[in-house]
Amino acid sequence: MNPINILVAQGGGPTAVINQSLVGVVLEARRHAGIGAVYGARHGVKGIVRDDLVDLGGASAELLEQVATTPAAALGSTRDKPDAAYCAAIFDVLRARAIGQFFYIGGNDSSDTVRIVSEAAQAQGYPLSCIHIPKTIDNDLMGNDHTPGYPSAARFVAQAFAGADLDNAALHGVYIGVVMGRHAGFLTAAAAAARQHPDDGPHLIYLPERAFDTERFLAEVQAVVQRLGRCVVAVSEGIHDADGQPILAQLGKALARDAHGNVQLSGTGALADLLCEQIKARLGLSRVRGDTLGYLQRSFVGCVSDVDQREARAVGEQAMRYAMQGHVAGSVAVLRTEGLGAHYPLIPLATVAARTRTMDDAFIAASGSDVTPAFLDYLLPLLGSGRVQTQRLRLPAVAPRASAG
Amino acid sequence: MNPINILVAQGGGPTAVINQSLVGVVLEARRHAGIGAVYGARHGVKGIVRDDLVDLGGASAELLEQVATTPAAALGSTRDKPDAAYCAAIFDVLRARAIGQFFYIGGNDSSDTVRIVSEAAQAQGYPLSCIHIPKTIDNDLMGNDHTPGYPSAARFVAQAFAGADLDNAALHGVYIGVVMGRHAGFLTAAAAAARQHPDDGPHLIYLPERAFDTERFLAEVQAVVQRLGRCVVAVSEGIHDADGQPILAQLGKALARDAHGNVQLSGTGALADLLCEQIKARLGLSRVRGDTLGYLQRSFVGCVSDVDQREARAVGEQAMRYAMQGHVAGSVAVLRTEGLGAHYPLIPLATVAARTRTMDDAFIAASGSDVTPAFLDYLLPLLGSGRVQTQRLRLPAVAPRASAG
Repeated sequence: MNPINILVAQGGGPTAVINQSLVGVVLEARRHAGIGAVYGARHGVKGIVRDDLVDLGGASAELLEQVATTPAAALGSTRDKPDAAYCAAIFDVLRARAIGQFFYIGGNDSSDTVRIVSEAAQAQGYPLSCIHIPKTIDNDLMGNDHTPGYPSAARFVAQAFAGADLDNAALHGVYIGVVMGRHAGFLTAAAAAARQHPDDGPHLIYLPERAFDTERFLAEVQAVVQRLGRCVVAVSEGIHDADGQPILAQLGKALARDAHGNVQLSGTGALADLLCEQIKARLGLSRVRGDTLGYLQRSFVGCVSDVDQREARAVGEQAMRYAMQGHVAGSVAVLRTEGLGAHYPLIPLATVAARTRTMDDAFIAASGSDVTPAFLDYLLPLLGSGRVQTQRLRLPAVAPRASAG
Repeated sequence: MNPINILVAQGGGPTAVINQSLVGVVLEARRHAGIGAVYGARHGVKGIVRDDLVDLGGASAELLEQVATTPAAALGSTRDKPDAAYCAAIFDVLRARAIGQFFYIGGNDSSDTVRIVSEAAQAQGYPLSCIHIPKTIDNDLMGNDHTPGYPSAARFVAQAFAGADLDNAALHGVYIGVVMGRHAGFLTAAAAAARQHPDDGPHLIYLPERAFDTERFLAEVQAVVQRLGRCVVAVSEGIHDADGQPILAQLGKALARDAHGNVQLSGTGALADLLCEQIKARLGLSRVRGDTLGYLQRSFVGCVSDVDQREARAVGEQAMRYAMQGHVAGSVAVLRTEGLGAHYPLIPLATVAARTRTMDDAFIAASGSDVTPAFLDYLLPLLGSGRVQTQRLRLPAVAPRASAG
């Protein structure tokens, strides 16, 4: 039997642990006798059609382990979505390179790409195992308890809001932090992990799972300011009104779209600025500050969940094992076991492809502007070990002077 | 001799290590026999005039050590600047509480407050030691080699750009990160520490020490994109044109000012968005993303330089010792010694107060859009131990197929 050449690539927005999955595939491949060349395509499917490949089989384990702990797709990424002509070009290269297994690490758009390639292989009778390996900071893959990339991004968001809340407690006013996640609020919701005491922020959390009403938002901010003298708010970039229109569209800006039809919400501070201006104008508050957490959420060096690292490595290894067991198509899922462990079944691509999981109602408070304790029970074990604990200086006030003269 | 009551407060924008200095004062005070009550004023001078004090003498060492590693002013902060009436109200409380030593932890605005209080004490013959303890992420205090708070913020900026550069390398396009610092470019310049290889970003660095010319900026971005297929840019929030007008003012927005006359530049993503729009419109590039690093730079939990922590503690301890030695007015400075150490002379308040240090010409590249190796020699020892090293996947491309079909 000829050895099987394999091809691995990365698609969509990178994460802090996406290279763990890449290295998981490559090192696991070395444990199987039937594997020949291990190719990496640069910039996802774009690198396949361009025959722009690197030889991962020749990389030292030392280099790979260093790459594994480096954020952002080491092979490069793309948001290209193959159509029929694109698919034909992919198969030209797969044939020429005698590829028998294709691994694509990405989110729901990338899993749709795997589905398209897998169906094309079947249609033309080309023998190809197509395995999707999950990653997304949005945590929005169907069929998964959670998704590699999310725990590290969630840890970043929690630490960002923990610090922003302390900063706001020192100088007061209103602080708005805008968090990534166009349809799913999981990452925004992770801001809740910043809280240690009842008066800690974020005091309000707005998720894309609930329609955003500007009047109610202003009333809720005002109520918190009246109660605490300050307010910290976590807002998803994907908030929209009851008609599904993005709040950002209220700016009247033409919103750019990518090849998958997704509106560009990230890479601009416009939503935070819009909300701050509303608060200043309508509530008459002066110190109102907005941050957009931006690309740091998925790429910041030095903020990673060790749980996430382990699981991201495991889904890469499992993908390779499933391919060697003769599975021809599927997506590796992450399901939680009792305790802190996880298991990784192979689920149908159709379960994941181009579908979006959003937060369960049980995770969202009745108010619509907070999470539930059940969500924190879900989230906290994912954030990993070694989180820095903060401490407020909670001391009694010195008694007033007898005669304040 | 009656014991001396002391008062400590924090002013201006918080940092990751400002509480180290607070705890340095409080714990050092416990080593001196002549000290009575140790008061903390909440929210800086505002807390003094309101007689809003806490008893730091009653805080346990365990609590204080936890507070020391927590970012953002634990006592609360303010940007109030005392005028004559405000000063009179301060002295009412100082007299009533029999305060003999006043410690104020802050930047150049706060040191000006210390100068005003100190001169008022002399004018009215009130015996008061007034010691300014330095902190600022901007690193803009005269008479100092560097300032507590800067190394940790610089580490955050370096790690943010290291990750953003990897993300940009994966998906290409142009990335602009806007960094705090209204007049001094030190923090923006710290982005240069993200680089490991010649083609790593940030590829361009724009500092407030040089006039910003939009045409030159666009040409420089275009040149990098032509060379590398991508470009990462670090921009100071304080960039201004040759007439000194903030580039942000080109938006035509009314810019808010604080009590010290400073224009509000932070807490908005407007500058990044403005620059991104220019690049899209004028260079015809599609994937252009802007982040504004915002308050995370000074408050993010879990990103701190251990060098910074040690020095921030030391300036608090030294301030207390100077006061006990009978020094009545001054600012504790940080000067570098051979090796990695520092020493902390007491310098005149007038050296620091309301003055702004900017980057030496020797730290800025002749191009005006980068730093020099001398700046990196200055910066790198401050960033502390335990920085995460990243690794790009640098592998040779697989040779093209003999017949490409």
